[in-house]
Amino acid sequence: MDTTATACLIIIGNEILSGRTQDKNVQWLAQQLNEIGVRLLEVRVIPDIEQTIIDTVNACRAAYTYLFTTGGIGPTHDDITSASIAKAFGVKLIRHPEAEALLLKHYKLELVNEARMKMADVPEGATLISNPVSVAPGFTIGNVYVMAGVPSIMQGMFGFIRPLLKGGALMHSRTLTASVAEGTIAAELSAIQDAYPAIEIGSYPYMRPGEHGTSLVLRGTDQALLAQATQKVRQLLLRYTPDVAEE
Amino acid sequence: MDTTATACLIIIGNEILSGRTQDKNVQWLAQQLNEIGVRLLEVRVIPDIEQTIIDTVNACRAAYTYLFTTGGIGPTHDDITSASIAKAFGVKLIRHPEAEALLLKHYKLELVNEARMKMADVPEGATLISNPVSVAPGFTIGNVYVMAGVPSIMQGMFGFIRPLLKGGALMHSRTLTASVAEGTIAAELSAIQDAYPAIEIGSYPYMRPGEHGTSLVLRGTDQALLAQATQKVRQLLLRYTPDVAEE
Repeated sequence: MDTTATACLIIIGNEILSGRTQDKNVQWLAQQLNEIGVRLLEVRVIPDIEQTIIDTVNACRAAYTYLFTTGGIGPTHDDITSASIAKAFGVKLIRHPEAEALLLKHYKLELVNEARMKMADVPEGATLISNPVSVAPGFTIGNVYVMAGVPSIMQGMFGFIRPLLKGGALMHSRTLTASVAEGTIAAELSAIQDAYPAIEIGSYPYMRPGEHGTSLVLRGTDQALLAQATQKVRQLLLRYTPDVAEE
Repeated sequence: MDTTATACLIIIGNEILSGRTQDKNVQWLAQQLNEIGVRLLEVRVIPDIEQTIIDTVNACRAAYTYLFTTGGIGPTHDDITSASIAKAFGVKLIRHPEAEALLLKHYKLELVNEARMKMADVPEGATLISNPVSVAPGFTIGNVYVMAGVPSIMQGMFGFIRPLLKGGALMHSRTLTASVAEGTIAAELSAIQDAYPAIEIGSYPYMRPGEHGTSLVLRGTDQALLAQATQKVRQLLLRYTPDVAEE
């Protein structure tokens, strides 16, 4: 029985694809999901093009337990995420009364305009996600969670989403680092991987001035197996160097 | 006639999806591609799973002019990119004589082992891509360019790939920044976007201590049109604030 909850993140934003903006959301969200037993299995970065958003949302919401999106829910012409997701679900885009009330309360009367009120539009049947930073809410519909792209706002919104998610078994990890080249230990490491198929062993070379080495990351849901596999890898590394660091 | 050359990047790596590693390759590659008139239109981050790599490579190489991959070409058991791409192309994985010679020359005799020599295996028909950092090469087959995931190595390899790419019209960009909320100017900005459909106008709010504002990024291949649209946006911003910064 597979108790794994899986996730995909779609980053909707020309600013990442143009190289203007460095993404800061993937790592943060991945770590949050780890903590509740949800495995991030795919990320896609796509442009602000309606048909691309519709097709990508529909492909990914069918493939994973949870789908998160970031970006494109502001007031300007390039913010087309909410309307595109309504089309992906085949429902109308409606002005949500509660979101409308929030925005009317937040903005001084002279700041209220149609562009800002557009931020109250969500697919019919969606539930609002609070925005503790700048009021304009995100929303969830089906297994899709729609957040802002600005990292501080995304993180604030995820604080409301996190308790709604049902994680599977927690993924635990151990990291061993040693100044041994990964090519040296590759065959023996592969044998350990074969002996522990339930543990995922990743090998990551690092290069620092004057030192080359390898970080070995072991991940798994069974802590006893993880400890055993980690011990095997530790013994392997100790045959080459006395200095094996563990995180 | 569409003279646009497009690109997709597939990042193959559990370490990004687990949140262990912050990606540093997307922004760098996007900027490099901009410089030669190739538009990065999609990024996917996927795990080290053979069928996922095969399916993703085949979907993306059909959809874009160029497909780049990073990660998974080292000596360890989790490095399955080369074998997976051979399967995606339906060709054999072969030991490339030139790559084999490079590795044999690079490693001292006692360091030569089967795991390291695996780094000489490429899909039949592939052409090697030099690795100026750590010798083990990448390769190209069809419109697919396979690079290492370590940023310094990826950047070194891309130095050899870049002259092989045929870009379309160069994308030029202008950025205007002002302490005006994007919701205030959204309707007028949308009208400018409608008047200049060939110019892509992105609106990005920023929040700094004591100051909220908007960066407007205009992009297009026609420099005269770009200058006109930029002038319209500048005039719009100047109606709200005297301080409009331009990059």
